[in-house]
Amino acid sequence: VECVPNFSEGRNENVLEAIAQAIKSVNGAHLLAREKDADHHRSVFTIAGQPDAVSSAVFQAIAVAVASIDLNQHQGVHPRIGAADVVPFIPVQDIGMNECALLAHNLGKRLWSELRLPVYFYESAALRPERRLLEAVRKGGFEQLRVTALEDPARTPDIGGPGLHPTAGAVIVGARKFLLAFNINLTTSDVQIARRIAVKIRASSGGLPHVKAMGVMLASRGIAQVSMNLTDYEVTPLHVVYEAVRTEASLEGVSIAGSEIIGLMPAAALAQSAAHWLQCVNYSPAVIFEKKLLLVD
Amino acid sequence: VECVPNFSEGRNENVLEAIAQAIKSVNGAHLLAREKDADHHRSVFTIAGQPDAVSSAVFQAIAVAVASIDLNQHQGVHPRIGAADVVPFIPVQDIGMNECALLAHNLGKRLWSELRLPVYFYESAALRPERRLLEAVRKGGFEQLRVTALEDPARTPDIGGPGLHPTAGAVIVGARKFLLAFNINLTTSDVQIARRIAVKIRASSGGLPHVKAMGVMLASRGIAQVSMNLTDYEVTPLHVVYEAVRTEASLEGVSIAGSEIIGLMPAAALAQSAAHWLQCVNYSPAVIFEKKLLLVD
Repeated sequence: VECVPNFSEGRNENVLEAIAQAIKSVNGAHLLAREKDADHHRSVFTIAGQPDAVSSAVFQAIAVAVASIDLNQHQGVHPRIGAADVVPFIPVQDIGMNECALLAHNLGKRLWSELRLPVYFYESAALRPERRLLEAVRKGGFEQLRVTALEDPARTPDIGGPGLHPTAGAVIVGARKFLLAFNINLTTSDVQIARRIAVKIRASSGGLPHVKAMGVMLASRGIAQVSMNLTDYEVTPLHVVYEAVRTEASLEGVSIAGSEIIGLMPAAALAQSAAHWLQCVNYSPAVIFEKKLLLVD
Repeated sequence: VECVPNFSEGRNENVLEAIAQAIKSVNGAHLLAREKDADHHRSVFTIAGQPDAVSSAVFQAIAVAVASIDLNQHQGVHPRIGAADVVPFIPVQDIGMNECALLAHNLGKRLWSELRLPVYFYESAALRPERRLLEAVRKGGFEQLRVTALEDPARTPDIGGPGLHPTAGAVIVGARKFLLAFNINLTTSDVQIARRIAVKIRASSGGLPHVKAMGVMLASRGIAQVSMNLTDYEVTPLHVVYEAVRTEASLEGVSIAGSEIIGLMPAAALAQSAAHWLQCVNYSPAVIFEKKLLLVD
């Protein structure tokens, strides 16, 4: 199983190193990657291994975050409700989405019982259908939720409460598929074009299923970008998104300047797009050597 | 280490199943894939594991092939000199090319001493520089080599002989980089077109480096095919080969009907081509999730 906890700390390297050490202290949990963003004031850790080891490592990491991060002092451009903000479990191999949801629920119970951290569940671990979407749970951020979690029955935590943890807020734990973060840069500095393309292609406005998109301006480079999350690349692959953006861009009279992969991608996500362009008639993820190797290890 | 033995049997499932069972009978040798092609009358097995286990499994598989396949009865479009035709060892992780060549040499000695199968060594295991290229060793196929191996000192086996095994021919054992087997089918039944395209793109006639290509007729489907091996995909990637064939095909007035991946491919081989078509500006093999996972296992 893989777990990609997001923490509301992107500047203080001491705190991030303590989180990394907590993860590494658990036998069988492997820290594959860590990324921090000072503007977002946020960090992402990628952990993989056997379910129990990963869950235990994530608990230890959250314990450090709860002890070290005070949301009352935290400002960043990224919406968040907790010191440990979002904690998704992702099936990798020999594990299903239901088992990942169970992992999420068990971790949530432990977070409340041992750390007094209130928990919301989202995506495939959601206990209320309206909480499947992360955006719905996180709406208003820490500043609003610490009030509404007390007053509004629709916003109370799934486990714990009433109200949020005074400094660490709450945590959103879930189970979901592998998410691809993929950005396409345009040959224009007009951010409105990127925004119109984003609206055209994203699922929420009737575009491609499982695509989240927004148009942003990359000030340092003077170019507009369509910034995307693909939440189910088997349904909407990279090449479909790329072609859709290219088509919409050409209607706007601009072109694609280049694309960027953020974080890690499963081999199959890239391979299926290669197979598409190669017109491969017998492609399946089973042709990927590394996937076979992982099955026998 | 990985080993990808090719056998001159692509139709009789009983023989192929016996070969597979022989491989699986060896503890620690993992049969990752098996493929057969009735037109080529040829099969490929992919085995991975610790060097000793893989070498032992390959020996058992070849023993079955020697006992079951009679080249005097064998016809297929693919050139071959043996029941077990080509047996390359490929370094995967924590092993070098020299160690793979040593594995090849030790297997060769055992094949002659226990099965009386003459052995030629190729690529990084070659004992004579003119035998580095597989085509040079295989020239003329079984029908010609069973005569010249006796008469021509330049064609005698590296181990064993004189002459070939009466029914199993000889085996070509070697050590090499990961090889991509990739075929492109054309929208024509004219095999001469496939042959002219093969000549244009292959390294041996001044085309793309590390590309071997031949034009073959797929009788069962009535289409011509450019059948290729890419012996260094980091130098000449899949998309470069695909585009070259497309260009040459269009000059011949035909199109690409589809492509086929034979056997397994490293994730990076497909990912780099996806990155090309996606115009990805920050791609590196380090973005592939499974590669990270294998590093920690």
